[in-house]
Amino acid sequence: MIGLKLLLLNGPNLNMLGTREPEIYGSETLPELVNAVRGYAADRDVELRDYQSNIEGELVTAIQEARLWADGILMNPGAYTHTSIAMRDAISGIDVPVVELHISNVHAREPFRHKSMLSGVCLGVIAGFGRDSYFLAIEALIRHLS
Amino acid sequence: MIGLKLLLLNGPNLNMLGTREPEIYGSETLPELVNAVRGYAADRDVELRDYQSNIEGELVTAIQEARLWADGILMNPGAYTHTSIAMRDAISGIDVPVVELHISNVHAREPFRHKSMLSGVCLGVIAGFGRDSYFLAIEALIRHLS
Amino acid sequence: MIGLKLLLLNGPNLNMLGTREPEIYGSETLPELVNAVRGYAADRDVELRDYQSNIEGELVTAIQEARLWADGILMNPGAYTHTSIAMRDAISGIDVPVVELHISNVHAREPFRHKSMLSGVCLGVIAGFGRDSYFLAIEALIRHLS
Amino acid sequence: MIGLKLLLLNGPNLNMLGTREPEIYGSETLPELVNAVRGYAADRDVELRDYQSNIEGELVTAIQEARLWADGILMNPGAYTHTSIAMRDAISGIDVPVVELHISNVHAREPFRHKSMLSGVCLGVIAGFGRDSYFLAIEALIRHLS
Amino acid sequence: MIGLKLLLLNGPNLNMLGTREPEIYGSETLPELVNAVRGYAADRDVELRDYQSNIEGELVTAIQEARLWADGILMNPGAYTHTSIAMRDAISGIDVPVVELHISNVHAREPFRHKSMLSGVCLGVIAGFGRDSYFLAIEALIRHLS
Amino acid sequence: MIGLKLLLLNGPNLNMLGTREPEIYGSETLPELVNAVRGYAADRDVELRDYQSNIEGELVTAIQEARLWADGILMNPGAYTHTSIAMRDAISGIDVPVVELHISNVHAREPFRHKSMLSGVCLGVIAGFGRDSYFLAIEALIRHLS
Amino acid sequence: MIGLKLLLLNGPNLNMLGTREPEIYGSETLPELVNAVRGYAADRDVELRDYQSNIEGELVTAIQEARLWADGILMNPGAYTHTSIAMRDAISGIDVPVVELHISNVHAREPFRHKSMLSGVCLGVIAGFGRDSYFLAIEALIRHLS
Amino acid sequence: MIGLKLLLLNGPNLNMLGTREPEIYGSETLPELVNAVRGYAADRDVELRDYQSNIEGELVTAIQEARLWADGILMNPGAYTHTSIAMRDAISGIDVPVVELHISNVHAREPFRHKSMLSGVCLGVIAGFGRDSYFLAIEALIRHLS
Amino acid sequence: MIGLKLLLLNGPNLNMLGTREPEIYGSETLPELVNAVRGYAADRDVELRDYQSNIEGELVTAIQEARLWADGILMNPGAYTHTSIAMRDAISGIDVPVVELHISNVHAREPFRHKSMLSGVCLGVIAGFGRDSYFLAIEALIRHLS
Amino acid sequence: MIGLKLLLLNGPNLNMLGTREPEIYGSETLPELVNAVRGYAADRDVELRDYQSNIEGELVTAIQEARLWADGILMNPGAYTHTSIAMRDAISGIDVPVVELHISNVHAREPFRHKSMLSGVCLGVIAGFGRDSYFLAIEALIRHLS
Amino acid sequence: MIGLKLLLLNGPNLNMLGTREPEIYGSETLPELVNAVRGYAADRDVELRDYQSNIEGELVTAIQEARLWADGILMNPGAYTHTSIAMRDAISGIDVPVVELHISNVHAREPFRHKSMLSGVCLGVIAGFGRDSYFLAIEALIRHLS
Amino acid sequence: MIGLKLLLLNGPNLNMLGTREPEIYGSETLPELVNAVRGYAADRDVELRDYQSNIEGELVTAIQEARLWADGILMNPGAYTHTSIAMRDAISGIDVPVVELHISNVHAREPFRHKSMLSGVCLGVIAGFGRDSYFLAIEALIRHLS
Repeated sequence: MIGLKLLLLNGPNLNMLGTREPEIYGSETLPELVNAVRGYAADRDVELRDYQSNIEGELVTAIQEARLWADGILMNPGAYTHTSIAMRDAISGIDVPVVELHISNVHAREPFRHKSMLSGVCLGVIAGFGRDSYFLAIEALIRHLS
Repeated sequence: MIGLKLLLLNGPNLNMLGTREPEIYGSETLPELVNAVRGYAADRDVELRDYQSNIEGELVTAIQEARLWADGILMNPGAYTHTSIAMRDAISGIDVPVVELHISNVHAREPFRHKSMLSGVCLGVIAGFGRDSYFLAIEALIRHLS
Repeated sequence: MIGLKLLLLNGPNLNMLGTREPEIYGSETLPELVNAVRGYAADRDVELRDYQSNIEGELVTAIQEARLWADGILMNPGAYTHTSIAMRDAISGIDVPVVELHISNVHAREPFRHKSMLSGVCLGVIAGFGRDSYFLAIEALIRHLS
Repeated sequence: MIGLKLLLLNGPNLNMLGTREPEIYGSETLPELVNAVRGYAADRDVELRDYQSNIEGELVTAIQEARLWADGILMNPGAYTHTSIAMRDAISGIDVPVVELHISNVHAREPFRHKSMLSGVCLGVIAGFGRDSYFLAIEALIRHLS
Repeated sequence: MIGLKLLLLNGPNLNMLGTREPEIYGSETLPELVNAVRGYAADRDVELRDYQSNIEGELVTAIQEARLWADGILMNPGAYTHTSIAMRDAISGIDVPVVELHISNVHAREPFRHKSMLSGVCLGVIAGFGRDSYFLAIEALIRHLS
Repeated sequence: MIGLKLLLLNGPNLNMLGTREPEIYGSETLPELVNAVRGYAADRDVELRDYQSNIEGELVTAIQEARLWADGILMNPGAYTHTSIAMRDAISGIDVPVVELHISNVHAREPFRHKSMLSGVCLGVIAGFGRDSYFLAIEALIRHLS
Repeated sequence: MIGLKLLLLNGPNLNMLGTREPEIYGSETLPELVNAVRGYAADRDVELRDYQSNIEGELVTAIQEARLWADGILMNPGAYTHTSIAMRDAISGIDVPVVELHISNVHAREPFRHKSMLSGVCLGVIAGFGRDSYFLAIEALIRHLS
Repeated sequence: MIGLKLLLLNGPNLNMLGTREPEIYGSETLPELVNAVRGYAADRDVELRDYQSNIEGELVTAIQEARLWADGILMNPGAYTHTSIAMRDAISGIDVPVVELHISNVHAREPFRHKSMLSGVCLGVIAGFGRDSYFLAIEALIRHLS
Repeated sequence: MIGLKLLLLNGPNLNMLGTREPEIYGSETLPELVNAVRGYAADRDVELRDYQSNIEGELVTAIQEARLWADGILMNPGAYTHTSIAMRDAISGIDVPVVELHISNVHAREPFRHKSMLSGVCLGVIAGFGRDSYFLAIEALIRHLS
Repeated sequence: MIGLKLLLLNGPNLNMLGTREPEIYGSETLPELVNAVRGYAADRDVELRDYQSNIEGELVTAIQEARLWADGILMNPGAYTHTSIAMRDAISGIDVPVVELHISNVHAREPFRHKSMLSGVCLGVIAGFGRDSYFLAIEALIRHLS
Repeated sequence: MIGLKLLLLNGPNLNMLGTREPEIYGSETLPELVNAVRGYAADRDVELRDYQSNIEGELVTAIQEARLWADGILMNPGAYTHTSIAMRDAISGIDVPVVELHISNVHAREPFRHKSMLSGVCLGVIAGFGRDSYFLAIEALIRHLS
Repeated sequence: MIGLKLLLLNGPNLNMLGTREPEIYGSETLPELVNAVRGYAADRDVELRDYQSNIEGELVTAIQEARLWADGILMNPGAYTHTSIAMRDAISGIDVPVVELHISNVHAREPFRHKSMLSGVCLGVIAGFGRDSYFLAIEALIRHLS
């Protein structure tokens, strides 16, 4: 599966990684984590582009645009996981498989984090493995696209 | 009713018309559709300005600004229909009548699409007639404003 | 679309138009309104037959029988909108497209009026435009059947 | 408590103060109100910076950035009060105390305004005192930070 | 209050009085009960007309027509109490005061009998006094109309 | 039915009759109303004792003690109608029939007033007839006890 | 069990059998089906009378009248299954055993078809066997009455 | 339909038939009942094997294994009716039609018995006819398989 | 605003301040706190009377009586916040503005503390600022009454 | 464990023991029962003081005061079990262990008796053993305090 | 009450006592605890047999078989408390009184542990006293059976 | 991480892999899949033992026993995912990390499959990647244990 191109999408507050609630999210910053994930991808001959936004509508746009170039999306939708019908519609509207991932185990947190508006239109979900969730999501997409 | 000015507002993912789920939304693109609607309006001596955004807050702003120039708004709020209290407040805050419209019959789809946060503060609702919903909404506004 | 035949169906209490809660429903009587709608239809070479009943089962029968002659139905189901599975089944059981319409904006009234048992099996819904809802529904059916 | 720096954050539609539903929100515009609040703060040797946005994600960013300079935040989150998990996460992710405030008594309005997604992670809540809510929130923060 | 005219309306299954669940409803038949109530009314110079139907829509029609001649309505809506929005709309649509009455104490029976769709638009409610509920309802209307 | 003794029980805030929300409750004070009811009872050879308290537990005690002397209770439980299991248990624990009455039509007010914890263990309910509710309740008890 | 007399009651839209949604209900018409069921009954020396109506209140009346001549009722209540308290009361009010039957497996359809207002007062329920449901219901009644 | 083979599956506590709540379930023991059903089946040239277990997982296994030899299953799932997704999945996973049956009328009992996790994936349901439910279920399967 | 008279009302368990859950409520006793608040009021030429009770009905009475002398009420209703319709009615029944206050941030505690029966009829709400909530409430009332 | 002092607290309507619903609560009066319990305690060198009130707030006060002298509380909260947040707060506010007890098996009665507002802050719960519940609660406290 | 025979039934995960969550369940193993309980029983001339299983259906069988020899059952149903209708039916099907017991205070834990499917058909419930719950349950059964 | 030992646990109906709903679960049998997973593990020097059962209680036991030898568990709990508190308690009771995995995307199926009783006590969740879910779960555990 030479030359896969993937979009790594990060939602609201993930730009705060390393500073926000480190007991839940760890102390690595987002750029550091993205670099590590990009290296991991490169080792598998996968090109990774990344995008982060706090704005729901910009995430919608990023998903829409990915249909033109990406083979797959790994997406940590953050807080919009639980409410965004707009992102759900964007995912439904493209043919690119999307993996939803979470750093923390959302099911072990507040009840409003137990429901996802997005999972039902994604390929699959990976949650709770800390930064490893990103690497597992890459792995999942490569396997799926092979 | 000479010289009416209307705002045609389209919400998230409507910029994807023609590419997204064509079995539900048809294959006409948004610019094509807007052109057709503008022509239809012009035939009735109605000026139509249009705006589309994937960002909830930008739609809020567009509604706010319409109070300064528009005689009415026809609005397809897309996914924000079901959750946006901010757009509801914007509509309540202006004196311009708003018609909520939907291309698909939202009541025949997933349960979370059956509830609208906006309908209660709109003049009325038109849903399910495909692209015709736009033309009917123009008609409804012209009749109401006459 | 020469020679369309449409059924105009009015549910419970619509025979009281003009006397009942005029601040919501206006002061025009049902026969006056039906006449106006019939004239509007005739101008478009559309034949309109109308039927009103306060009895749910008679409305069911009228929907059933329309399958033998009507090209479309415009229906103001009144209070049965919110509870009638029998009317829903009747609509599902015929191949004639049905437009659900309401004079008032049901979404701006009591919560029990926000839910429709019928919308999901209709072609579309038009609500909130006063007597204009009838004319818009005619327009919607003509466009759909063309 | 010399030299406190506070962020005054206003959410969607608050830029419409003075024009929107004056029977609820009064006729003073937002710049006028902010000026009055800034003067009140200055009298207490408190520096006030203000920010308003209709976009949820921009409010998220403003909260995130306040961790670098602000001693406290007074925030009228408007319509996002009731739905924004992203703002909740942003507040949880900083060490700066936040006071949630509302001009109107949200509990005396529609049921969907009775629930706040934000109050649980704020220092406290002040609601219902009109423009006074802003002054009381300043007072509350100064007391808390002393 | 000489010459009051009242409508006594009985809903579904009340024609079975005397045969149906006598431990709840007693053994007096409906004609016998109506006679007794009519006599009681006559003693107070009140004319009583009565109507019973098992058909919701016919009860709607009876309520509508009462606006032309009746000073008040005493109504035992039977099973339609709990579901009939059509009867609710009919009552809202006339200026005649309506007293809702029940023979049994509906609150001591199945939960689905605890909710009334009608009480909110009636003058008042009397329930649980057996056949006396009818006489008390007459009394209530006479007092109200005096 | 010579020599009946009845307890007239009034719950919280009924001591404010005449001053509280007169558009709902009228301008007659509680002592004036009780006097009128007592006179009405005396005319029927019925002795009426009355008791009012704002304290739930004192109303419980009054119900308990009535078992020793009263033939019936007419009770306006006010706000405790909707929550008091203690009063419900007190009523269940005595053999004296209780009529629940309300001045206003509770079903036409806020939803939390639509549910009664007490009705299910009372003889019957009378609501919505203003001060007449008291006289009708006397009448209901006399009829029941005859 | 010589000479049993049974009522076969069919509710709304069952008069459309053979034309309505044949993939669910089959292509046999109601008269054809009733004839087959009558023949089956006759073979067992059972007399079958049948009645169909789209009107809830007429079904109520048919149930009431059956108490005078029928040994049992087999009833396909159609859409009224899920909402009719009036039919429930009618069944409770007679001593004749009633078998509720459905052609389709209502539990495999929309959620609002999963609840029956009638089953709780019927002898039993048979659902999902297509036209066989009628024959099984006959069988069930004959066995029960033997 | 010569030589049909059916599985008769009985769930938890049905081994107690004849000793458990005889006013609901009768006094016949399970072996006696199975014998009677087997005889009834044999008369129709149908071979019946039976299995009872109190253990959900063993019932799952029995359903799985029936795919290898059975033409149909009649199943009284007892208490697991209302909760067992595992049995539901087992039924979905085989091509053998399953008839769900109940001795008692579950709809006339506690609310938690009104919901079935299994009915939606069964051919049909028979409930409330005492031991006859078994014979009717045999009949239903033979008819369906013919 | 010379000579304002305010009632400071404290509900159940607030007499335990200083001993009860000091990590939530602090170690100052109620008399100490009331003294501090009274001093604060006196500095603003405001007379403060205080009342505490564990008994709901006594709090009702105190609210009722305040209508005769008080210009405003600051009230910490404690546990009755969440259930007391009687106190709600008392507040509705007087013309004196009431500020609801809480020491702790009730929204950060158990879900049953998130709902207030009282907020909707109060002027406003202040919660979460520890003992400062009292001083802020004074401030709010003085501002409102000026 | 020599010299333990316990408070026996009885809530509303328990003063009616022996007269109220004896089929549920037995015919022993409260003083008789308390005497028996006191004797049982004395045999174990435990001093028992008892208090009964119908008034929620007095029960709150009794719990508060027990912190000054009691080693434990055995409490039958009666109807306040299901609603009293004030009693819950009082229990949370003291360091004395509390055993909740009930004479009847509350779980076998009406659904509103299945929920306890108090159990979560008590040491434990004993319910359903008639008068024995009191003796078992003594035993439980002695064991816990040893 | 010489020679009582009791069954001590322990449900899933109770075989892990002493190793599982010792801060909740203590460090004593199940055999040690059973021995202690058996000794306590023997001192009262009560024979105790015990059974533990992780399998719901085996617990059902154990309850069924106890009807042949046991005078009472003390049962810690563990996780099946909250879901097992099969165990509920088994208990209903025997004449042996059952005491439900829990080591921890289930009401102070997750909400899904607050509901019991079993309590309603047991004699009574004892929860929250650690290992003492077993001894109290023995005591409760001996008292009940005397 | 040389010499890791993992338990691969499969719940109800997973023994049917390859025969059951292949459009959802694929055509590979469970032994084939387990072999592939074991080989994958062996390549990473990880020993894999596997266990499958249809019986909830046996799965509970397998989890309990794994605490004695396993470094981690990968578990496809099948239908018990949604209801098993017993498995939840077993997982809570051991110190071995558990990864919950699903072949299908449970969030895209029936609503009752959207809730997991287990996720909250697992390390993390992987769902929707077909057989790849197993390999990803191995990967996740190895990463976590390194």
